[in-house]
Amino acid sequence: MKNISASIVSIGTEILLGEIVNTNSQYLSVELAKLGIDVYEHHTVGDNRQRLLDYFQEALKKYDMVIATGGLGPTIDDISKETACEFFGMELVIDENSLENLREIFKRFGRTMTDNNIKQAMFPKNAVILKNGAGSAPGCILEKNGKRIILLPGPPNEMKLMFDKEVVPYLLKLTDSVLYSEVIKMCGIGESAMEEMVLDIIESSVNPTIAPYAKTGECRLRVTAKAESIDKASELVKPVVKKLVERLGDNVYTVGDDTLAQTVAKMLADMKVTISGAESCTGGMVASMFVDCPGISEVFKESFVTYSNDSKIRNLGVSLETLEKYGAVSEQCAKEMAEGSARKSGSDVAYSITGIAGPDGGSELKPVGTVCFGLYIRGMTVTHTMRFYGDRTIIRTRASIYVLDMLRRELLKFGTH
Amino acid sequence: MKNISASIVSIGTEILLGEIVNTNSQYLSVELAKLGIDVYEHHTVGDNRQRLLDYFQEALKKYDMVIATGGLGPTIDDISKETACEFFGMELVIDENSLENLREIFKRFGRTMTDNNIKQAMFPKNAVILKNGAGSAPGCILEKNGKRIILLPGPPNEMKLMFDKEVVPYLLKLTDSVLYSEVIKMCGIGESAMEEMVLDIIESSVNPTIAPYAKTGECRLRVTAKAESIDKASELVKPVVKKLVERLGDNVYTVGDDTLAQTVAKMLADMKVTISGAESCTGGMVASMFVDCPGISEVFKESFVTYSNDSKIRNLGVSLETLEKYGAVSEQCAKEMAEGSARKSGSDVAYSITGIAGPDGGSELKPVGTVCFGLYIRGMTVTHTMRFYGDRTIIRTRASIYVLDMLRRELLKFGTH
Repeated sequence: MKNISASIVSIGTEILLGEIVNTNSQYLSVELAKLGIDVYEHHTVGDNRQRLLDYFQEALKKYDMVIATGGLGPTIDDISKETACEFFGMELVIDENSLENLREIFKRFGRTMTDNNIKQAMFPKNAVILKNGAGSAPGCILEKNGKRIILLPGPPNEMKLMFDKEVVPYLLKLTDSVLYSEVIKMCGIGESAMEEMVLDIIESSVNPTIAPYAKTGECRLRVTAKAESIDKASELVKPVVKKLVERLGDNVYTVGDDTLAQTVAKMLADMKVTISGAESCTGGMVASMFVDCPGISEVFKESFVTYSNDSKIRNLGVSLETLEKYGAVSEQCAKEMAEGSARKSGSDVAYSITGIAGPDGGSELKPVGTVCFGLYIRGMTVTHTMRFYGDRTIIRTRASIYVLDMLRRELLKFGTH
Repeated sequence: MKNISASIVSIGTEILLGEIVNTNSQYLSVELAKLGIDVYEHHTVGDNRQRLLDYFQEALKKYDMVIATGGLGPTIDDISKETACEFFGMELVIDENSLENLREIFKRFGRTMTDNNIKQAMFPKNAVILKNGAGSAPGCILEKNGKRIILLPGPPNEMKLMFDKEVVPYLLKLTDSVLYSEVIKMCGIGESAMEEMVLDIIESSVNPTIAPYAKTGECRLRVTAKAESIDKASELVKPVVKKLVERLGDNVYTVGDDTLAQTVAKMLADMKVTISGAESCTGGMVASMFVDCPGISEVFKESFVTYSNDSKIRNLGVSLETLEKYGAVSEQCAKEMAEGSARKSGSDVAYSITGIAGPDGGSELKPVGTVCFGLYIRGMTVTHTMRFYGDRTIIRTRASIYVLDMLRRELLKFGTH
């Protein structure tokens, strides 16, 4: 199996100033992985000839290919093609075909073609010219002694179209291996605890490889195999995923693309169970996570964002006695909120969240980050208290994920009993 | 004026596989520019000791400083600190203070601290240790012969907090030219229309520079001056900001850090006006934006996430006739939702949103993206209909921003009459 190694370089001072987020590298990484091309690094340089030249030098010493985005336009600070030609010692000449295309594009847009545009139609004689289906600057592929530079435009829509239509067919001829990944998503377990549970499997697995990583409130394992076809790679991945999922048990909420909210929404739909909510400190964040799932109307009825005590009393029937005796941030209040939401909505299941998201409002007994949860499921209510860390947004996000996971785990019990 | 040169390196195989977009480099670029530190390149490497070591070697030949994100966690593929120490020839020893903090964090989370976590408390003797206010892994700054490596965690919330609280004060001591920026934030106007309104000012201004940029549903101008002190830079910025704000008028919702929701919340608080909501397709997103503002309890009473028709009838008193005659996505329904929310809550102001976020549910007359808004303000109700483009999440986000801006513009009228 041939292994092609590559680096991705983004060219543009605006990226180094933080004016735009570089999404091109991500797109190219995903697409190159599908083709089985190994991406070893991403790099960004400004619109600077010398530094780009240095980078071509360093990268092509190590890798077979550099894929560059940006710097193909008509202005003087667009220098990618010129610099790549300088690196390979190639000369730029006018390509009549490209010049004709360029004239047509300007005619269609009803614009006058200024002289500085002509450089967009100049290429070395042996270049593979890549058509731009969404803009004026064509890209190109330059090759010398088995080393390649692929030059693509910077605007993501132009780059993606050119890559898909022009570069993929070219690369398919060069490579004969592909990568296939599956992602195992977990909640309610820390990254290090997760790793300890499966360390022996991670360490003993070579193809596929297993990589752990974390997101706010969640952690994941990515299982990736390399083979000559997607089918063969998938055959290597499936049994390892199965083994990991068995080991990790109920911590796993899905294998695949679903979010936690989507997973829970599907469980509710499968069980033909309706849900409603009652949110204080999360202020509708959980409801919004549910409503972000297409087709949620089957199961999600409503949520009460009851931020004030008065609102908890009026809308959910929380008792004044409970609020006075235990406070709004208490399991007693969470219980009454969940039960009130279910009663008002006629739903089978109801969740509630009431906590102190900060920065103010904490006390010694109930510091900032204290959150109480209630979960009513067909006549039974369970409650929890948790303490989260971070700023207001993070505490609210972690609390929202927590209640979804709490619900998921309770529904699992229901499903198996 | 000393000029400090830097590169930013992101560490993580998941970035090279395209599983996450690298937003850390953008954040750091913006913040380093403010400090007058010149960022010459961004780089991404996988979780690979040798390649990271090679990068430190190359980058610190050229630049004064490498700022690294990622690879600080407890697992075996977290290798940033170990590799930086190897590069500088420094030895890792347990820092008792950090170990104590780590134990506390695990205790607070109610989790068992596994052995692999101890490496998060190991640092070279002369390292500057950077506290992590949002997670378990501390960062650090290593220095030798005037060359520095700053190691930060990968999760953006942890990285940002650590950079702001711990790294900025450190860097301020190193540099003696500073950048000062103010950001003018606008809503309800497109980026190109905004630029046309002030193009003459943008083109004639050198120090400060003026940079336009856009975010979902919003657009912004950043005005940045370079000088020897914040005071002097601020003196350059202020008059230009004033001129721009005058020209842009009511499109500007704030100059500074406040979000649109915070701006509106402050207007409501100043006017001593209470608010409640009624949300269908946004599903609590607007309520959540309000509740994300500290101190919102003064003005925000509650919101009804009424996703089903039944819920709109029961909770908000929307009439069955309206739903049958005009449908749930209609200005008539939006009006009754806003008025119902105000009536139920006893609030002075109430907003409502009902729309088709897709991907299904659209028709020829009401295609996906159609959203109706209602705004009740002390006895009067205005309604609007808008059509938004994008996926479900984007439509819901744009609708949430739209209703906040609609409210802002109505409150402005109130304030001046």
